[in-house]
Amino acid sequence: MTPHRFTFGLWTVGNPGRDPFGEPTRDPVDPVDSVGRLAELGAWGISLHDDDLVPWGSSAAERDRIVARFKSALETNGLGVGMATTNLFKHPAFKDGAFTSNDRRVRRAAIGKAMRAMDLGAELGAEVFDFWGGREGVEVGAAKDPRDALERYREAIDVLADYAVEQGYDLRFTIEPKPNEPRGDIFLPTVGHALHFIEMLARPEMVGVNPEVAHETMAGLSFHHAVGQALWAGKLFHIDLNAQRVGRYDQDFRFGAEDLKEAFLLVRLLERGGYDGPLHFDAHPYRNEDAEGVWDFVRGCMSTYTALAEKAAHFDALPEVAAALDAAGTPELAQATSSGVGEADALKAEVDELDALAARGYANEALDQLVVDVLLGVR
Amino acid sequence: MTPHRFTFGLWTVGNPGRDPFGEPTRDPVDPVDSVGRLAELGAWGISLHDDDLVPWGSSAAERDRIVARFKSALETNGLGVGMATTNLFKHPAFKDGAFTSNDRRVRRAAIGKAMRAMDLGAELGAEVFDFWGGREGVEVGAAKDPRDALERYREAIDVLADYAVEQGYDLRFTIEPKPNEPRGDIFLPTVGHALHFIEMLARPEMVGVNPEVAHETMAGLSFHHAVGQALWAGKLFHIDLNAQRVGRYDQDFRFGAEDLKEAFLLVRLLERGGYDGPLHFDAHPYRNEDAEGVWDFVRGCMSTYTALAEKAAHFDALPEVAAALDAAGTPELAQATSSGVGEADALKAEVDELDALAARGYANEALDQLVVDVLLGVR
Amino acid sequence: MTPHRFTFGLWTVGNPGRDPFGEPTRDPVDPVDSVGRLAELGAWGISLHDDDLVPWGSSAAERDRIVARFKSALETNGLGVGMATTNLFKHPAFKDGAFTSNDRRVRRAAIGKAMRAMDLGAELGAEVFDFWGGREGVEVGAAKDPRDALERYREAIDVLADYAVEQGYDLRFTIEPKPNEPRGDIFLPTVGHALHFIEMLARPEMVGVNPEVAHETMAGLSFHHAVGQALWAGKLFHIDLNAQRVGRYDQDFRFGAEDLKEAFLLVRLLERGGYDGPLHFDAHPYRNEDAEGVWDFVRGCMSTYTALAEKAAHFDALPEVAAALDAAGTPELAQATSSGVGEADALKAEVDELDALAARGYANEALDQLVVDVLLGVR
Amino acid sequence: MTPHRFTFGLWTVGNPGRDPFGEPTRDPVDPVDSVGRLAELGAWGISLHDDDLVPWGSSAAERDRIVARFKSALETNGLGVGMATTNLFKHPAFKDGAFTSNDRRVRRAAIGKAMRAMDLGAELGAEVFDFWGGREGVEVGAAKDPRDALERYREAIDVLADYAVEQGYDLRFTIEPKPNEPRGDIFLPTVGHALHFIEMLARPEMVGVNPEVAHETMAGLSFHHAVGQALWAGKLFHIDLNAQRVGRYDQDFRFGAEDLKEAFLLVRLLERGGYDGPLHFDAHPYRNEDAEGVWDFVRGCMSTYTALAEKAAHFDALPEVAAALDAAGTPELAQATSSGVGEADALKAEVDELDALAARGYANEALDQLVVDVLLGVR
Repeated sequence: MTPHRFTFGLWTVGNPGRDPFGEPTRDPVDPVDSVGRLAELGAWGISLHDDDLVPWGSSAAERDRIVARFKSALETNGLGVGMATTNLFKHPAFKDGAFTSNDRRVRRAAIGKAMRAMDLGAELGAEVFDFWGGREGVEVGAAKDPRDALERYREAIDVLADYAVEQGYDLRFTIEPKPNEPRGDIFLPTVGHALHFIEMLARPEMVGVNPEVAHETMAGLSFHHAVGQALWAGKLFHIDLNAQRVGRYDQDFRFGAEDLKEAFLLVRLLERGGYDGPLHFDAHPYRNEDAEGVWDFVRGCMSTYTALAEKAAHFDALPEVAAALDAAGTPELAQATSSGVGEADALKAEVDELDALAARGYANEALDQLVVDVLLGVR
Repeated sequence: MTPHRFTFGLWTVGNPGRDPFGEPTRDPVDPVDSVGRLAELGAWGISLHDDDLVPWGSSAAERDRIVARFKSALETNGLGVGMATTNLFKHPAFKDGAFTSNDRRVRRAAIGKAMRAMDLGAELGAEVFDFWGGREGVEVGAAKDPRDALERYREAIDVLADYAVEQGYDLRFTIEPKPNEPRGDIFLPTVGHALHFIEMLARPEMVGVNPEVAHETMAGLSFHHAVGQALWAGKLFHIDLNAQRVGRYDQDFRFGAEDLKEAFLLVRLLERGGYDGPLHFDAHPYRNEDAEGVWDFVRGCMSTYTALAEKAAHFDALPEVAAALDAAGTPELAQATSSGVGEADALKAEVDELDALAARGYANEALDQLVVDVLLGVR
Repeated sequence: MTPHRFTFGLWTVGNPGRDPFGEPTRDPVDPVDSVGRLAELGAWGISLHDDDLVPWGSSAAERDRIVARFKSALETNGLGVGMATTNLFKHPAFKDGAFTSNDRRVRRAAIGKAMRAMDLGAELGAEVFDFWGGREGVEVGAAKDPRDALERYREAIDVLADYAVEQGYDLRFTIEPKPNEPRGDIFLPTVGHALHFIEMLARPEMVGVNPEVAHETMAGLSFHHAVGQALWAGKLFHIDLNAQRVGRYDQDFRFGAEDLKEAFLLVRLLERGGYDGPLHFDAHPYRNEDAEGVWDFVRGCMSTYTALAEKAAHFDALPEVAAALDAAGTPELAQATSSGVGEADALKAEVDELDALAARGYANEALDQLVVDVLLGVR
Repeated sequence: MTPHRFTFGLWTVGNPGRDPFGEPTRDPVDPVDSVGRLAELGAWGISLHDDDLVPWGSSAAERDRIVARFKSALETNGLGVGMATTNLFKHPAFKDGAFTSNDRRVRRAAIGKAMRAMDLGAELGAEVFDFWGGREGVEVGAAKDPRDALERYREAIDVLADYAVEQGYDLRFTIEPKPNEPRGDIFLPTVGHALHFIEMLARPEMVGVNPEVAHETMAGLSFHHAVGQALWAGKLFHIDLNAQRVGRYDQDFRFGAEDLKEAFLLVRLLERGGYDGPLHFDAHPYRNEDAEGVWDFVRGCMSTYTALAEKAAHFDALPEVAAALDAAGTPELAQATSSGVGEADALKAEVDELDALAARGYANEALDQLVVDVLLGVR
């Protein structure tokens, strides 16, 4: 296995444990301290929102001082910056949306804030600039024509892509979809919607997706398949790893804390698919942890990923797995089905074979049990 | 309002009431009788799977006789054919998939069966040929690499599009997404995934989506927004209307039987968006109906759609609604946000206005209450 | 119709619009101002948590002054107090639970805080004292044996019931269930679990349930049926009205903003079932409202309830509805099925009638369409 | 560990693979063959519906011959009967309900059919007689007053309990809850609702619950907690083991095929809670299995349960787990919180400690990571 480039958001290890029903349970953390601790524990790098590092309302001079101190900490500790982004959800002005606010002045300020954050991301050497449009949505369907909203969303990404090119920034963009929360319905709710949206942009080649385990899982969709579609399209530019139960509030649990089988399939796909971007843990410690519990959380994310990657390699090395995959016909799915429309008559004739073809079993129980056995370490 | 072209699938009015736990409760219906009854009740047309009309295993001569009798019934009753499709889910040979079965022979037969069904659809004058890939999925994630599955899916649609062109058929294709059931996870689970998949095809211009209320709603996604994204992309070629509760088995209830507000938003969007394709009710009567109850179901679907379309027109004609939309800033979302990257410096400067912009309210409670009041007929 | 006793929580009209991803959007509201405004708009009363009125950390003297001023405002405005409760979720000490915290000292303080809040509730003349155990749960299943947690929960309610009796308070208790959020899994997740728990208490006769639309709906359960089971058992002591989409974060929308048919069935059941307790709106205005929008929200909650109650009366007065209910066999369900085990042989013999009984239709499509037509005001 | 008494329903290994969209994929199985094969593979026993063994419409003589042959097979193979039940969902006469059908004649026949099935169950020596009310519900809320439905449900169970007593049958009853499917909303949707219903019966001591993994999980509820509440109340008389994704159609997958952590918590609770009833796999093989794949499914259910039971024992034997549980305060939850209302003043005074108590961390990340590590076999 190649070494994994694990990253953590400053907002994840710095999460103070506030939730909709309760006050913070942990003190704020200095980002420089987070850098030091993450380096010690073996992370490759960090990611950040503009406001995670530079508090809203800082003067230009303060901003520069903070950034310099932080860059120095990154260098001292040998950490990289996987992803930068802009916080377009916390400030009350974004309560109706950012790029899709009904107020044009808010939309303009949102684009401006993203530009400033791109400047910061470029300065810190970020690989990817992410867009999570958490406020781009509605509770009241009549309040926004969805076609207008998508048009404004496209306009914003297009002008920001122009800005990156004009500034010569070496940043690839990602769109991070989510179905709901904090808005009732968020535009671009799934990886599929985001992949389609990218194709509608002026510079589609610059933009990929940043799928998040929790976000697809909230809607009960297969994350394994979402990542598969992104890889198939060459659009997996970043990934957000965490854990979530279906049909609930956004939980952002430690990677592997829910649905170990789906986590295994994901890790196996990433390893086989040659993904070499940051493995970003966008999660947070349970609210009932104290300051030390945060680092248990960090250790757990990385150790579970590593364990699953080792299990994926072990699984694919087992002769009984190869036999089970053959019995399931898995390798046969990689073969072309036909030579094209020229054999239409042959294909039509083969319909008559269906009754005979129905007898075949696909041995999926045995295959899935091997997955379970490998996961449990009994094989 | 222009007249609505309501269509019903032969399988909907002919649904015998079998479910996973119980035997049929109604007798089979002769498609010719369905045509007569639908015409009487004011439907514009029908849709069908190949096997709905021509029972599996019919000889070529039987097939031709059945088709001729059916065409004659359509003509006599003045009904059109909105959509044709092929049943790639009922035969046990499709238990592992059709276009994405791990068995290449099944994949070939599935393409052949689709070609035969296209011949039938063209013969009947169908406008649209739909692909619902109900079996294209897995219960066992390890059994199919999702990238292989999508590649095979693409191959199948590409060769079938070539076939349509070669045969000179005037058929547009639609992809009908669904997240799960009958498979654990179905490929192309949402309208977004299908819209993206279409962009990956060799002939994207021939292919649109056929969103279904129940399918997006199963995953808790906004159907209003899904249809909005399809309209925005010029890809709404057909639509399947019914009703469904979130997070459940596929219910296919009478249109309007669940979530009247979302149904209203949908109808309003279709009317405003200029959609003029078939309004297809892909639903079925409750299992505890007898043969006559089927026609109550048919009447209900059409009358609720019509009532909602009238309410949409009424809503948009009310002065207090116009005022509420202005207060919400809804029309302002149709305005361009900026003149482009040339004003980057101005946009960055406007970030400093955010604190002041936060004071504005968007009056969404009042607007949504107007929707409720119009729905309830109290305004 | 008897006049409806509408109540609003101080925390609902006073909600500042903070959410997990964003800062407050509205200023704090003086509870005395809320009382005045609610009286003007026609509410019957208010409900409150201890901390809504008396800020955490107030001295005894401050507490008494605040309470006196508030009582005076209630009297001046002629408002009652429907329900009082204690906030056992906001303070960080409750991060692991209150009555079921793993820390015994926290559990003791939680009981003490509830006692103090009962003193306050009794002083204000509250009818009901509610227990919403939002923190009584886990993210980590191994952290609490669920049997121990239920035992501690029972112990807390038992000692508090003893306290009420000893103090001579005229307070009935309610348990308010919720499946999740803010905890991963909350104990007593549904109305059913709470009704059972009550039967396990030392003083079951003192305790009923306080079902909330949003809480049952999060889990996709029928709220109509939950309230039906509570009424059947004589245990509907209070009710929390709002709106929610299935399978999402806790939305607490304006009553009637989602699922109008379920809201109609609920209101019809409450009216027919003779429920005469407070009709409590436990909801909050959208975050993108300003201070004035709060009162649009208040008006909407009450006007939609009233409209649905009128529609319920209208529905039950329509002759075609009576006919449709007869066709569905609805009144027949109120008849006893048998005279008891004495006719066992007759009952066993009647099994042979099943084939003949299968022919009957239940005309549910027609009945449900009447519900829709009445809701839409077209009948 | 004591030996586990694994049982399989005749309908599980005999499942022919029919689903709502497709025809059967496997041939019918002779129950006697199932008995032989299950014995070979190490099952303790079977369970059955009346109609699984004796086809609907059999004469009395045929019935007796079939039963005798089956009893003989059980004896020959040394298998027991864990549970018997009656099929009140498959026959079309039950389309509107069985005990709660709006047609009184259907209700009477349903009770009669249950009596006949109890005779069969007693004859076969079943331990438990189960009631799964799959058809007891509605799609159309207005069609049944839920209070009437619950009253009829209670009447049916009461008369059947009288019948058992009168006949001298040594049968305990179980209620098996389910939220939906095949009905839109089923009465007694969760373990909680069923536990409460039992308390409303004339003979509550005779009746317990039969929780099913898939049924609670469909609604996203914690199965671990549901079983915990049943054990706490002394009402866990039987259990149905399988696997399910949240928010979907009823999947009935092989035990352990989904959510291994919840499965582990369940098994650990059953082992610690002293449950010694049948461990019943109410699941079915994937539809794309052939006849041999059925037995892979059977082996998988038992081997995963056994592996998890071993892991539960290992977990509880690890010193680091004991330390982590102590750090989380888990054992402290078993201690009484107070000595009763006599110390009310002390409890009220301890509220002032809350600010100090907030500092404690509960080390849940470390504890949950131990669960994951033990599951993965890396510790």
